[in-house]
Amino acid sequence: MTDDRRLSFWAWGYEDRLPDDEERRELAARIEGMLGFPERPVVDYPTLDDVEMPAPRIEVPDDLSEFVTADRRPRASHTYGKGYRDLVRGFHGDFSSAPDVVATPRDEDDVEAVIEWATGENVAVVPFGGGTSVVAGVECDGDGYAGVCSLDMREMDRVLEVDEHSRSARIQAGATGPEIQEQLAEYGLQLRHYPQSYEFSTFGGWVATRAGGHFATRYTHIDDFVESVRAVTPAGSLETRRLPASGAGPDPNRFLLGSEGAFGVITEGWTRVQPRPPHRARATMRFDDYWDAVEATREIVQARLYPANCRLLDSDEAMLNELAFDGSHLLLLGFESTDHPVEDDLERAMTIAEDHGGTCPDGPSVEDRSTGDVEEEREDSEEGSWRDSFFEAPYMFNALVSMGVLVDTFETAVTWDQFSDLHAALQENVVGAMREECGAGFMSCRFTHVYEDGPAPYYTLLAPAEVGSELEQWRRIKETASDTLMEHGATITHHHAVGRVHRDHYHEEVPENYLQALRSMKRTLDPDGIMNPGALL
Amino acid sequence: MTDDRRLSFWAWGYEDRLPDDEERRELAARIEGMLGFPERPVVDYPTLDDVEMPAPRIEVPDDLSEFVTADRRPRASHTYGKGYRDLVRGFHGDFSSAPDVVATPRDEDDVEAVIEWATGENVAVVPFGGGTSVVAGVECDGDGYAGVCSLDMREMDRVLEVDEHSRSARIQAGATGPEIQEQLAEYGLQLRHYPQSYEFSTFGGWVATRAGGHFATRYTHIDDFVESVRAVTPAGSLETRRLPASGAGPDPNRFLLGSEGAFGVITEGWTRVQPRPPHRARATMRFDDYWDAVEATREIVQARLYPANCRLLDSDEAMLNELAFDGSHLLLLGFESTDHPVEDDLERAMTIAEDHGGTCPDGPSVEDRSTGDVEEEREDSEEGSWRDSFFEAPYMFNALVSMGVLVDTFETAVTWDQFSDLHAALQENVVGAMREECGAGFMSCRFTHVYEDGPAPYYTLLAPAEVGSELEQWRRIKETASDTLMEHGATITHHHAVGRVHRDHYHEEVPENYLQALRSMKRTLDPDGIMNPGALL
Repeated sequence: MTDDRRLSFWAWGYEDRLPDDEERRELAARIEGMLGFPERPVVDYPTLDDVEMPAPRIEVPDDLSEFVTADRRPRASHTYGKGYRDLVRGFHGDFSSAPDVVATPRDEDDVEAVIEWATGENVAVVPFGGGTSVVAGVECDGDGYAGVCSLDMREMDRVLEVDEHSRSARIQAGATGPEIQEQLAEYGLQLRHYPQSYEFSTFGGWVATRAGGHFATRYTHIDDFVESVRAVTPAGSLETRRLPASGAGPDPNRFLLGSEGAFGVITEGWTRVQPRPPHRARATMRFDDYWDAVEATREIVQARLYPANCRLLDSDEAMLNELAFDGSHLLLLGFESTDHPVEDDLERAMTIAEDHGGTCPDGPSVEDRSTGDVEEEREDSEEGSWRDSFFEAPYMFNALVSMGVLVDTFETAVTWDQFSDLHAALQENVVGAMREECGAGFMSCRFTHVYEDGPAPYYTLLAPAEVGSELEQWRRIKETASDTLMEHGATITHHHAVGRVHRDHYHEEVPENYLQALRSMKRTLDPDGIMNPGALL
Repeated sequence: MTDDRRLSFWAWGYEDRLPDDEERRELAARIEGMLGFPERPVVDYPTLDDVEMPAPRIEVPDDLSEFVTADRRPRASHTYGKGYRDLVRGFHGDFSSAPDVVATPRDEDDVEAVIEWATGENVAVVPFGGGTSVVAGVECDGDGYAGVCSLDMREMDRVLEVDEHSRSARIQAGATGPEIQEQLAEYGLQLRHYPQSYEFSTFGGWVATRAGGHFATRYTHIDDFVESVRAVTPAGSLETRRLPASGAGPDPNRFLLGSEGAFGVITEGWTRVQPRPPHRARATMRFDDYWDAVEATREIVQARLYPANCRLLDSDEAMLNELAFDGSHLLLLGFESTDHPVEDDLERAMTIAEDHGGTCPDGPSVEDRSTGDVEEEREDSEEGSWRDSFFEAPYMFNALVSMGVLVDTFETAVTWDQFSDLHAALQENVVGAMREECGAGFMSCRFTHVYEDGPAPYYTLLAPAEVGSELEQWRRIKETASDTLMEHGATITHHHAVGRVHRDHYHEEVPENYLQALRSMKRTLDPDGIMNPGALL
């Protein structure tokens, strides 16, 4: 369970970490100076009293009342994820799609009881982990249902079992990143899966949405760690066999990885874990030319050096993160190992970068540490500073939204041969759409993950929104970005999931008869269609 | 298409490579000396005239007669895979489950025409690649169908497109290992996926069965190379988007990987390829104690050194492969890179092995070569000699079967914490079953692949069969092995697939409602159930 500090009911993170008015004014000035946007007003954050929300359509059943509530605050907190559209509506007090009730099961029996009740009453059940979805994965209008029950898994937050010999752990779905970190620390182990939502998002949410972690190569998604998954579906519970690997039929874990609550709710799973890596080496390479930097990145990943970090920040992204203001593009390289020094790997990667015109003004940094935790990793290097802004960015988003700035991110993956066309088309179409809709627009790009056959670029958008029209402006810009991805052979999402926002484009991305097959599967596991209706399918 | 040398209609490989009588006598003597079996008679190999086969139940349709035949030889060649049970029946001329017709489509239109015709006539369609299945994946009795059509994909054997920049290639399903090797060589690229069946098995077969290749870590299954798959199902064709990675819903490639022809037939796919690795380093470590060797192997893989080869041969396996006769256990370590020297990685792995009592009498071998092909890799080292016997082993199996030796292999994967119990139980149960059934029995073990959380052990069985009862003897021994795997948390197969032989145990391994979901999926893609009935589901 998350600690006693109160989470905001409308915005990212803890209430007491929301930027205050002074910080917001500074941010406004910085945005104005950096991006040339007109100064934005600093409007008060909403309070729970400002919230408009329909009365619950259903009553809390007596026999579930110990862990199901229809109270105002939990309903507000479970209405949205944390995408731009969510923050805008939350900021303006619009909670019209609030769930009618919120369940917080304490164990699998409670989960089964909720699903049984929901089946009988035609109530839609929406699994909820950290509520950090940016694709409306937890928002359900309940059309065609008697009501909506948000199923918050965060009471089920235990690491149940650790197998130190095989380096794996059995973890409940509702455990957040820090909760897992803390419990595994007793064994000297870590999961080392740090999505940007790490502080709040949960193991079950990561599995359901195929979350991306901090490794740039090799272990890019939670998929790469999962040994087995347990889930409760309306057709009964299911548990895959815990195995290091198998070749027996289509991989059953892969049916739950990415299922986004549409088949059932994930309750726990076995995952691979690892000791903290004492060996580290990192360097920041600067490039004058973006395409030289892209080529260097491609060669590094194709050399199979397996960097843990291989983030290419274009000059706009470098500026946004206050790492460089001279127009250079930065390639942040990091290697880590639990077993052996990694400076040779870094050196080889730096050589490849240098062959493409990269320089390393600050030189590499090599470490061998045997103690510490994730907080200590945020040192005062560019890499560390970038990591800080990585975890702080969502708080800034809150503030920006409150000042009427349209701020969004989207990400994808595409083969190397198609990347330059895609990138150019996005620059033209998406920046064009921002200018048309908002009069101005800023787009930066970083690679979050890289593969031998292509990068996973991540784009950040900033534009001055018009209060009152911002959701429509956003919709047109987002549509332009998604259409461009589809036209250029890219995926609609590398690690943000499908939810409801990406659903139509997802249906364009995958073959129609595969979708039909997934629907058949859903009808078998969820015959009444109560599980997260509208997400994915 | 395979070359003009003729493939045996009943046994593994080329007719002219079947061991002759002299070689068989030598083999018999060696088996007798090594394993203590009674001398076995050398009986003539069967000829096509010896074959007993029912008349075809269906006629070749006129409009498909250009590529569909009911001739005796192709029917015999497409009756079985290459498992023990197949070789026994083939050797004895029993071809009672021969397909009625054999289709050899030249393109996707031909494939669609066959499926359309088969749907109309209620004919079962059995996709056929190299015919190297050891789990009856290509054998269908056709009960409940008007007849059976074997769909041999080997005319579709082209590398259609190569993207050198992204290091990927589009390959037709029927291309065999050597055909892919030859076509990619024009670009200086390789797939570097070498299952034991490499010479004959096909790209489509690898995808359909999740074949295991030569990499011991990291790229263990063909799954790790596939970017996209194209397939023809009775509900229409489908093609997944070619992507380096995606997080959009359950991975559509993973539904076809391991589908074993039950949903449709794979016609082509994009896969990652790579240049030939000029940097190699290898060493053979000897251990007196097996469990020390196991611990060393575990530590090496958990150190994330990513050896390309990490094969632990127990002393019986070392003897069988004529690599050691003094009771030592061998760990064959090999590293390779297209980009950088790998001797440091080897050295670190050797140090770990030495910490567990391993020695390296012959010292490591380090190479940096810039030319050569797979043939040249078979050098006169232990590693090379082992590789030779790896590719030659199936020919020896032919000969052993012809002399009444029961010879079989099975393989699995299990987490490290459960391996010692599993291994002990297999020793007791399976060797016990061989003794009970055959009066004697030999079982050796090697690790073919290793994971951070567990090994993939591969067992070879040899026992003196009683001619006439050997299939029943085999059935009991196989059942014992499979039951033991299920009881000890292992998988029924790491890379031999499910087919019909493993089907019941596969259904025990995966959750019942997952199986129901797979069946729903099949009903959607194959509504009349004509695709490889009885395999997998």
